[in-house]
Amino acid sequence: MSASRKQFHLNAFLMGVGHHEAAWRHPRTEEHQVLDVEHFQELGRIAERGKLDSVFFADSLAVGPRIKRNTLAVFEPVTLLAAIAAATSRVGLIATASTTYNEPFNLARKFASLDHISSGRAGWNIVTSGSEEEAFNFGFDAIPEHARRYERAEEFVDVAIRLWDSWESSAIVLDPQEGIFADPDKVHTVDYSGPRFKVRGPLNSPRSPQGRPLLVQAGSSESGKEFAAKYAEAIFTAQRTLEEGQAFYRDLKSRLPKYGRSADELKVLPGLVPYIADTTEEAEALEREFTDLISPDYALGQLSRLLGVDLTEHALDAPLPPLPSVTEIEGGKSRFTLVKELAENENLTVRELIGKLGGGRGHRSFAGTPTQIADELQSWFENGAADGFNIMPPYLPGGLEVFVERVVPILQERGLFRTDYEADTLRGHYGLGSVESQFAEVQTEASA
Amino acid sequence: MSASRKQFHLNAFLMGVGHHEAAWRHPRTEEHQVLDVEHFQELGRIAERGKLDSVFFADSLAVGPRIKRNTLAVFEPVTLLAAIAAATSRVGLIATASTTYNEPFNLARKFASLDHISSGRAGWNIVTSGSEEEAFNFGFDAIPEHARRYERAEEFVDVAIRLWDSWESSAIVLDPQEGIFADPDKVHTVDYSGPRFKVRGPLNSPRSPQGRPLLVQAGSSESGKEFAAKYAEAIFTAQRTLEEGQAFYRDLKSRLPKYGRSADELKVLPGLVPYIADTTEEAEALEREFTDLISPDYALGQLSRLLGVDLTEHALDAPLPPLPSVTEIEGGKSRFTLVKELAENENLTVRELIGKLGGGRGHRSFAGTPTQIADELQSWFENGAADGFNIMPPYLPGGLEVFVERVVPILQERGLFRTDYEADTLRGHYGLGSVESQFAEVQTEASA
Repeated sequence: MSASRKQFHLNAFLMGVGHHEAAWRHPRTEEHQVLDVEHFQELGRIAERGKLDSVFFADSLAVGPRIKRNTLAVFEPVTLLAAIAAATSRVGLIATASTTYNEPFNLARKFASLDHISSGRAGWNIVTSGSEEEAFNFGFDAIPEHARRYERAEEFVDVAIRLWDSWESSAIVLDPQEGIFADPDKVHTVDYSGPRFKVRGPLNSPRSPQGRPLLVQAGSSESGKEFAAKYAEAIFTAQRTLEEGQAFYRDLKSRLPKYGRSADELKVLPGLVPYIADTTEEAEALEREFTDLISPDYALGQLSRLLGVDLTEHALDAPLPPLPSVTEIEGGKSRFTLVKELAENENLTVRELIGKLGGGRGHRSFAGTPTQIADELQSWFENGAADGFNIMPPYLPGGLEVFVERVVPILQERGLFRTDYEADTLRGHYGLGSVESQFAEVQTEASA
Repeated sequence: MSASRKQFHLNAFLMGVGHHEAAWRHPRTEEHQVLDVEHFQELGRIAERGKLDSVFFADSLAVGPRIKRNTLAVFEPVTLLAAIAAATSRVGLIATASTTYNEPFNLARKFASLDHISSGRAGWNIVTSGSEEEAFNFGFDAIPEHARRYERAEEFVDVAIRLWDSWESSAIVLDPQEGIFADPDKVHTVDYSGPRFKVRGPLNSPRSPQGRPLLVQAGSSESGKEFAAKYAEAIFTAQRTLEEGQAFYRDLKSRLPKYGRSADELKVLPGLVPYIADTTEEAEALEREFTDLISPDYALGQLSRLLGVDLTEHALDAPLPPLPSVTEIEGGKSRFTLVKELAENENLTVRELIGKLGGGRGHRSFAGTPTQIADELQSWFENGAADGFNIMPPYLPGGLEVFVERVVPILQERGLFRTDYEADTLRGHYGLGSVESQFAEVQTEASA
């Protein structure tokens, strides 16, 4: 145990009553909690008890086609996190929001507001919304092309960053005697005009505690990786083996220098769905309980969407039919590739593939004792595959509780994870300072 | 005192540390609270202690031109109200949001989320965003025309209502044994296609506790009144005299039958800025303290924007210069008319006009003892000018506290206001039931 040892990061990726698609059918969950904001506030408190860096909510702007069989994100993440902010004080709060179906001004404002409400704990998982169902809710007849979505995302984030930058941290004067609220010389217009957006600014929010939210990205396609290297401060990724994890990690870090960024500025956080019990056998039995609850028709529908092939009439015990090339996929390219390679490399039947995907939609599951889970995390961290982990409890709140109560203490004992928060902000937890306005920097240089 | 007496409604319209533009300069406020979410949570608790129907936050999607002199809405209202929801349990939560600069799907989702988070306390104040500064933040070179904004608002609200209607209240099955999450026959696509929007739906949120948020409107132009008559369940309005209030009230109510609505379905809530003290003299002195803190340059800027005429170099003790006709105004038409008529009817100098407007930007101020305030409210209510009031404390939290502690008990004693909440939802407080899906109604009729 060493206090000065390099430590890793832990994000709790939370979804309804658990990540496993059948979580709500398992006796360890209360299915009605998917509708209960207090359930989610309690998850925030549990994560904070474990000193976790952050909690994170995914999102999609549509009901999927299989509403009969599975849950959906009932709450819009930013409003949900505002309510969780009120029930916690230190844990980071990361919300997914789309660059394809929002306006930069509105989204920049919303995250600035969450950052003010939470005293500096907001993070934004930037997504480009790759499903047809989402496109149909915003006037489109088809998914906007993958490349066009990423181009828009780049411009969108550029504009958002300028908006967050429009107020210097010292702009608020609040001098009641002189009657000066803000120093207009420290509140800057943005005057942005590009191919997609034209925004004058400034943002209608004083600089928030972090300067801007932590920027997170979760797509691992070529465009996604390049986007992450340019903008993101953390990346959530699905990597199934240590070797794949190492290759991804090297790949990502190698892209940073051309953007003038150091390896430390982007944290790579692979996902893990942990099934935790006192013995390996019990943990594996627990995982099987969940697998046995999967509805094949739901799973086939999900898999069909992911792969762009209708499998709903396909035999469960046959291998996959021939799949399209990744170049034909306009939705999530990296998840398509992961599932295709998994099925081909391990020569899986559709039933076997569904079982492997049920717990984490492509993310790695691991069944073991608390020590085995800790060993596994340590191994990935120390062998260059991770700066931390995106923990995806298969069932909630129990799956998060057991991680916090049984695994975190082992990691702390080994010096791999903090024993208390050392910072007040999400950026601080990830070892990053708050961001000062570019305008403030220019002025400092000019006056130096 | 009579328990069965017809009672009125009270909404607390909250802004920073008070509605008076110089509130943050007065010793009764702590100016830094404009940035403190706990201040706003405490305001929610005070309103709830007073059994008020709701708290309400205005919003604008831009920094005004006078940032040096005055505050702005630091928090985005829906996220702020999600945090206030976590600190309260009964008071309604009304947020302003724009139909001009949002997408119906996103906004319908956000309010459904707030309604879930608050267990049925969400309300939406529908605005069309009439300032040039807002237009500049969303790619426009000028304010979209008043008439076009209202056309878009109508279509927007039509789409939002369809989205809220897309889930029947009994759609969520949550049957773990059979593995049925929702009944797909009770989750309906919207398939809307109109001149501005094309939205397939359904909304990605199960039906929220109220069915949909309370719909509120605050513009009193001809288009605004017609819009309110068609859609709104409450209207906030600025009326300066009992006679004007009565005329407005009659006008609004007379528009309801053509939309198949009864007089009870739209509550008319004129604004009041109360200065409350033990004696009339003390109350008037308190109001003067605030008036004396107004920055003339800030007030001239605000007035210039409102009237569409540059007054910043105009002599303070001269009357107003000739004003444009209301037909030339593309921003807030009703506020323009109110201010123009006030100045002309009372033959005011610019300085006198600024003093009258400082407390409520056109809303009526009233300085008096708790009994005098109660008398005034009772008089408007009993003489056909109001179904309730939009209380705009000039300073916060003190101005809300004194209203709740000194005025509300008198109203309760007279049987004019509830002594405890009789409903759990915002719609309930306003005497309205939750809204059932149109699809559910059709089915009920078909099966009857």
